[in-house]
Order: sequence, then structure tokens, then C-alpha cells
Amino acid sequence: MADVLIKNAKFLVLDSKKIIKDAAVAIEGNKIIDIGKTDELNYRAEKILDASWKVVMPGMVNCHTHGAENLFKGLSDDRPLWEWYLNVVAPGQFFFTEKNIRLFYLLTYASMIRSGTTCFLDQYFFPDVMCRAAQESGLRANVAPFIFDLKPAEKWQNRFIDAANPEAQIRNAEEAIKKWHTAESGRIRIQFGVHTVLDNSVEHLQKTRDLANKYGVGIHVHLNESSGEIQMAKDIHGKRPLDHAHDIGLLGPDVSAAHCCWLTDKEKQILADTGTKVVHNPKTNMKIADGICPVPDLLDKGVTVALGSDGAGSSGEMDMFVAMKLAAILHKVNRLDASVMPASKVFDLATVEGAKAMRLDAEIGSIEKGKKADIILVDIKKPCFFPIARESIISNLVYTANGNDVDTVIVDGRILMENKRVKTIDEFSILDEAQKEAEEFISELWSDIPGIKRGVRGIDYWQTENKDAPEKS
Amino acid sequence: MADVLIKNAKFLVLDSKKIIKDAAVAIEGNKIIDIGKTDELNYRAEKILDASWKVVMPGMVNCHTHGAENLFKGLSDDRPLWEWYLNVVAPGQFFFTEKNIRLFYLLTYASMIRSGTTCFLDQYFFPDVMCRAAQESGLRANVAPFIFDLKPAEKWQNRFIDAANPEAQIRNAEEAIKKWHTAESGRIRIQFGVHTVLDNSVEHLQKTRDLANKYGVGIHVHLNESSGEIQMAKDIHGKRPLDHAHDIGLLGPDVSAAHCCWLTDKEKQILADTGTKVVHNPKTNMKIADGICPVPDLLDKGVTVALGSDGAGSSGEMDMFVAMKLAAILHKVNRLDASVMPASKVFDLATVEGAKAMRLDAEIGSIEKGKKADIILVDIKKPCFFPIARESIISNLVYTANGNDVDTVIVDGRILMENKRVKTIDEFSILDEAQKEAEEFISELWSDIPGIKRGVRGIDYWQTENKDAPEKS
Repeated sequence: MADVLIKNAKFLVLDSKKIIKDAAVAIEGNKIIDIGKTDELNYRAEKILDASWKVVMPGMVNCHTHGAENLFKGLSDDRPLWEWYLNVVAPGQFFFTEKNIRLFYLLTYASMIRSGTTCFLDQYFFPDVMCRAAQESGLRANVAPFIFDLKPAEKWQNRFIDAANPEAQIRNAEEAIKKWHTAESGRIRIQFGVHTVLDNSVEHLQKTRDLANKYGVGIHVHLNESSGEIQMAKDIHGKRPLDHAHDIGLLGPDVSAAHCCWLTDKEKQILADTGTKVVHNPKTNMKIADGICPVPDLLDKGVTVALGSDGAGSSGEMDMFVAMKLAAILHKVNRLDASVMPASKVFDLATVEGAKAMRLDAEIGSIEKGKKADIILVDIKKPCFFPIARESIISNLVYTANGNDVDTVIVDGRILMENKRVKTIDEFSILDEAQKEAEEFISELWSDIPGIKRGVRGIDYWQTENKDAPEKS
Repeated sequence: MADVLIKNAKFLVLDSKKIIKDAAVAIEGNKIIDIGKTDELNYRAEKILDASWKVVMPGMVNCHTHGAENLFKGLSDDRPLWEWYLNVVAPGQFFFTEKNIRLFYLLTYASMIRSGTTCFLDQYFFPDVMCRAAQESGLRANVAPFIFDLKPAEKWQNRFIDAANPEAQIRNAEEAIKKWHTAESGRIRIQFGVHTVLDNSVEHLQKTRDLANKYGVGIHVHLNESSGEIQMAKDIHGKRPLDHAHDIGLLGPDVSAAHCCWLTDKEKQILADTGTKVVHNPKTNMKIADGICPVPDLLDKGVTVALGSDGAGSSGEMDMFVAMKLAAILHKVNRLDASVMPASKVFDLATVEGAKAMRLDAEIGSIEKGKKADIILVDIKKPCFFPIARESIISNLVYTANGNDVDTVIVDGRILMENKRVKTIDEFSILDEAQKEAEEFISELWSDIPGIKRGVRGIDYWQTENKDAPEKS
């Protein structure tokens, strides 16, 4: 007897190397209890999912996002990181309330379910709301409350202003750890979400490191994203951000660093030596012109590299199939070598390597007896997938599929979406509510495009002399 | 009275600059007869399409593909252009018969309809089959029969062998022009599909140019795709391919050149001066590591640039939303400038500029009274699109949407797909038939991977010393 039996899978992808045709998977509780050919796997089950003409594969692990940034999607696009950040994200953050931010998280979590993500890391404000939204969605969540105690001001200048309440965010994070870490049978976990090493004092970072050790939780951090960030760190600390992070003892195997577009050979070696994980976000890095993370070099050095969608505000979408596709093709053209980042390697990055970056690879990342049942079904009965062969299925998932091809999603043994209907989130009512909430923000924002309307809440948060940035009200 | 009335469009995108909310479009025969606010457009119509929560926009124009290459999709990926070509495409071409190639074209044409393409240029063999498949599909087609009379041999060496029957392909193309050009009320057109200037003799190219003038049809050509091609042209002709094409008088406003990844300043100027159009295929260029077409420079010079998906064999997919997304983000990261290739410009490339490249901009490319009704409906009632604003809709189409979001497609006033059901092609039976046909080829191909099985048909076509390439049988 099983709780869920997936049968008749045209292709069952256990991982990028092991693919079984006409296969079945039996799930009991939140675990995979058996795997085999459909005609050899004899289980009665309460729920049977027919996977004829479907690919059954491990759910995707999205290791870097900011859920509520879908509010900013499409607003002020085609601008570089800092302009976009100062004009839209910074003021926008002051628009959020506990009530409305829940809606934006739920929209993002519904988008993730729809596109086949089963586990994510979300770094943002309001950890308690994030955890409740994650709980409601059914997704496997790593919630990383933002940690910063300094405000970078006047573009690229070495003039930091002490925040009014430097202890508040660490306290928030500690509360989240006590309340939520390993909640929902371990489905929800907390990490420290260090924003950057530029808007954190050395003492704050060291305290974060100590607390991460004390509680046994991970640290997530934006690191070496843009060339501007590198210059800013040199101005402030006299060294590059990654060097600085290393020198103060922040890095380690429990740290995942997002972006890492600009790395010296020495920094690549530090990542390898410290066991620090890297999260590659190709869509954002391309769209806001950050730069290109040297993923092939990092893989050569044995660094664990995972993939992320980043927030929809910067990347436009949560679709991890897009992240796979871009990770596969960006480095090929950048190095003029079609053999780098082959499809099977990229598939690993989105699944088992993501699980490693979250230190969850004993539990998830592949379809394996005893592992948690985080599984997605991809509908391939479409002309774009044909003809098809077992030997080309990973290629087709990376180069042909997109998130809309996912039709069923299981996390921790629970069916979150079946035949493209999300069961855990009433997405259409949320969508209406979120739209109503957003319209106030959007209308304020657009009323004075291409600049930003004076008086948008939070406008005095980032003080800047950038001519396109918000003026102080 | 109209034949089709699209009403309640949440957003009606006439072109990238003109967007109307709550709008309607009236179609009579194959033409758009009226446009306005839904409550002001009073037409009775035989068929009403409700576009609540949909974006109504011009159909996409895919200016470069090879329809039947979906057979090669996923086979021998992660290899550079010539290896892939010699190992899979070249032998594969000899697998095709008039019977089975129709199935592969129809699968591709169904994929195009599904992802919102309404007009394409397909360059390949078997023009008569292509035209019949295009006729059946209902798509607006530019069919470009391959033109070449020389066989490049032994990689990069200047040793050409005269083809047995140099006149056959031009004769085929002429027959296609006489039989099909402007057929189906102008929905089907023929162009000369010059493969490259390397596998065509000067005389053959000049004859093609004369015949294009005589019949008033366009010329499509692969030009300056890879650095290897540039080197090969230098070895053979003592100059670069584009210089060679220009010197023999091939270029002009009726020519569209695919790829153009490697261009000197002089060549960019030649494109501008001759009015030659460029078709940018970012997915293929990235995936097989061709290089990066300097699109921003070409646009600065006033060159018409269109977009293409290329064949699914090299690009993996026909989705023009992916082509838009990549065209927008590739150049940003390549130039470290997020302001290049803004969403609205890229949207133009996929629509009205594509129409210009096909010299069809008087008829299609935007939603305009009097133009042909080539229109698609995009379903945005999904959490990934929310919140949404009129001002961000083009951004959302470029950075968030994919082809699977298209739910209805109209070409020449005829509904080819409604609510994701393709009406003109029985895609599921075609899919089964194509799979059966392909399995023989795939099993032969895979039986000796990573090399190719000896004895695959056509193996003696490309003579090569590439160690991974097929040996002569």
C-alpha cells in the first residue's frame, strides 16, 4: 500500500544519468518507498497519477530569490542594477505591509509551483510572513531574513550611515529560527540572509557568523555581483567583497553566495578551499548586465554551483527551466565552446547541486528510495518535444521545455499541483487582491516616469546623487 | 458585420508603442477592419473571441528556420556547429523522404502556431512538401528552397567538389516560384534559400541573383555565422563571406542574411548601404557557440534586424518569445549595459521588423486597420504576470512570457488555434507517426554514440577527416 503511485511514466528521470522508461514511483507519507518498471511495481495506492507521455523528474531547487519583488516586475526595466535598485526596489520596499506582502509572496510561490520548483531559498524582509506563506504553499522553503545594519549612500562613495536599530534584523532572524527552523517536519528552514558585505559592519557579520554556528543554520549572501560592487568594496574596505568576507571568517560550507560574477583566480580558490557554495542567476545577471559568473571554472575547481531565478523584479520570472537553459547556453557563447555546460551538468545544477547548496542533498535533489518525495511531472505530449528518445530527454528538458510544461508537482509527498491546477493556493483570488494592492504603487511610480514620483514612501532610504534616482522628499 | 470580433482585450498591443486597454478588433475576410474600445466597437460577428485577461498582439514573425530539423533535436547537443552538422544534420538529411519529411514540417509548424508565430521563413529541401505543409497549417509562409552546387569537404580545406547536378536546385526553386509564389491569396511566398556563399560557385550565386530579380522574389542566406566560416571563406576566396557576397552583387534590400555574428565595421556598413536585412538567431548562436551578432551596432546604423528561432535541431525550440528574451538579455550582458536592446525594441524585432525583413510590412507586423489579420492572444491570468500595468506589458511579454502562454492564433483572418487547440493540424496523430518514422533514424544514430554508426544513409555526402564525423561506408 502506498499513498501515491505515479505510474506509466514515459521517462522517469532519477537523476541526469539514470533514466527508466515505462516506470513507476511509490510514495508513502513524505517519502519515496519504491521505484521500478510500472508492470513490476505492484502497489495499491489511494492516489494514482498516470504519467503516460510525461517525464517524471526531481523537483527543481531554486537557490536564490526575493519573493515579493514580483511587485517590481516590468517597472523600470532595461536599467543597470543600481539604477533599478534605487529607483524601484528601494522605495518599493517601503510600500510593503504585513498584509500586502503576503499576497506577493503567495503569487511568487504559486509561480514556482507552476513552473516545477519544489524547494527554494527566499531572502527578504518579513520572515514570519514568508514562513507562513511557505507553510500555506506546501513548498520546501529556506527562508533567509535580510541582515544589514548599514546604509550605503551616495553612489559608490565611502560614506555609510549607521542604521537606527542595528540589532533589529539579527533579532528578527533569531526569532524566526526559534519559531520556524525545521517546522513542518523539516520542510521549512531558516538561514541568515546577509544582504551584502557592504551594508553590514564587520561586527554585524561576525555576530551573524557566530549565531549561524550556534544554531546550525546556513548563511546566504549576495557576493561580487557587479563591477560597481567590487569598486565600492575597494573604496570602503580596501579589498574586494569576497576577500573581505573571507578575511572576517564569514565563508564556509554552510554559506551560499549568490551571483559571484566577478572573481579573481584567488577568489575562485577561496570558494573552493572554504567549501562555500555559489548560486548562479543567469537571467538577472544578463538582464541587468551584472556580468557572467565563471561557472565552468568553478566547476573545474570542485565548487558546488547551484541555480537561482532571483526575484522576478530583476529577472522577470521564477522559471527554473529558463535558468537551466540560460546556464547551458550563456557560457557556451561566452567561451565560444559548445562543449562547456552540457545539458546533463546543468540539469544537476538545478536539482542535486541545488540540494547540496541548501545542505539538503541527503533528503532531496534526486528520485531515490528513502528520499523525500519532491517530484514533478512534465507533459511532453506536444509537437515541440517530438521526435523524442531516452538518450535526448535531458537535452530536451534543458533546451526545449519551459516551466509551463510542468503539469503536476509533489512536495514532501503532497500534491501541490495536479494537471496545472494549484491546490494549495487560491491563485486567482490572490491575483486579484495583489493587483488591487499593487495599483496604488504602480500608479505612483508611473505617474512621473522616467524619473520616479517624489514622495513615494521610503524615498529617503537610499540617499543618492544619481540623477535618475529618487530625490529626497 | 464582421467575421471575427476579438473583444474585452485586457491589453490590445497594436505595436510596441500603442497599447489600448479594454479593446476590440474586428476582422472581415483576411483583414482587420476596425479597432477600438470594446464598448465603442459595435459589430455583430459570426465568431466572437473573448480576450478578458488576455493580451492581444501582432503575431510573431520568425525569419529563419529549417522546419524538418526537429528530427535532430537533442541528438548530439553540446557540440560546435560543424561537428553537429557533420555528425547529425548531414547524414540525417539523407534519411528524409517526401513522406516522412511532411510529418516533421507539420510538427514544427504546429509548434510555431502553439508558441504564437504567424509568419515564418523556412529554408530547406523539398519545397513542394514545405509549401503543402504550410498550406495545410494555415501559417503565412516564406519557403526558401536550399541553393548550393558545391560540397565543402575535409574540414576547412579549400577543396570543393562539383556537385553531380548543379542545376537541380535552381530548377527546383524556379518550379516552386511558378507553382507556389503568392499562392493562397499571397499567404505563401518563395525565396531563394542560398545555403552559404561557400557551397555555391560564383556563377551559381549570380544566376540566383538574376532569377531573384526576374521573379521579384527575395534571397535568404546564412552569412558570417561562425569564425570557422570566416576562415574557410578567406582560405577559399581570399576574403570574408560577406565581402565575397557583396563583391559578386548578391546583397540588396531583398536579401535577408541569417546570423552575421562576425562582422567588421566595413561589413556592417555594407549591410547598411545595400539595405540587406539581418536575421538574429540568439538561441542557436548561444547554444552552438557561434558568436554574438552585433545587433546594437547594426540598429545604430539603420540596418533592419529581425529575429529567428533557427531549426529546432540547433536551437532546441521554435519559441519566438524565447528569441525575444534572449535578444533582449544577451546583448545587455555582452556589453555590460542594461540599456541596450530595451524590451520595446526587441518586441519590434519580433514583429514589425520581421515583417520588413520579409518585405511584408505593408501587410503584417502590427495590428492596424487594413492590414492582414495575423493576431495572437496571450493568456496572462497566471500568477507569474501579476501585478501588471499597461506601462509594463511589453516588458512582461519579453521578460516573463513564453510561447506556452499563447492560447489563440489567427492568421490571414483564420483561427488556427483556439484555447490551445490547434485546428488545422491533427498534431497528436502526426506526433505518433513522426515518432515512429524517427525511431529508425534515432536508433541507428544512438547505436554507436559518441561517433555515428557507419552506414547511415548519406554518409558519403560530406567527406571529412573530422575524427568524430561519419566515415564513408
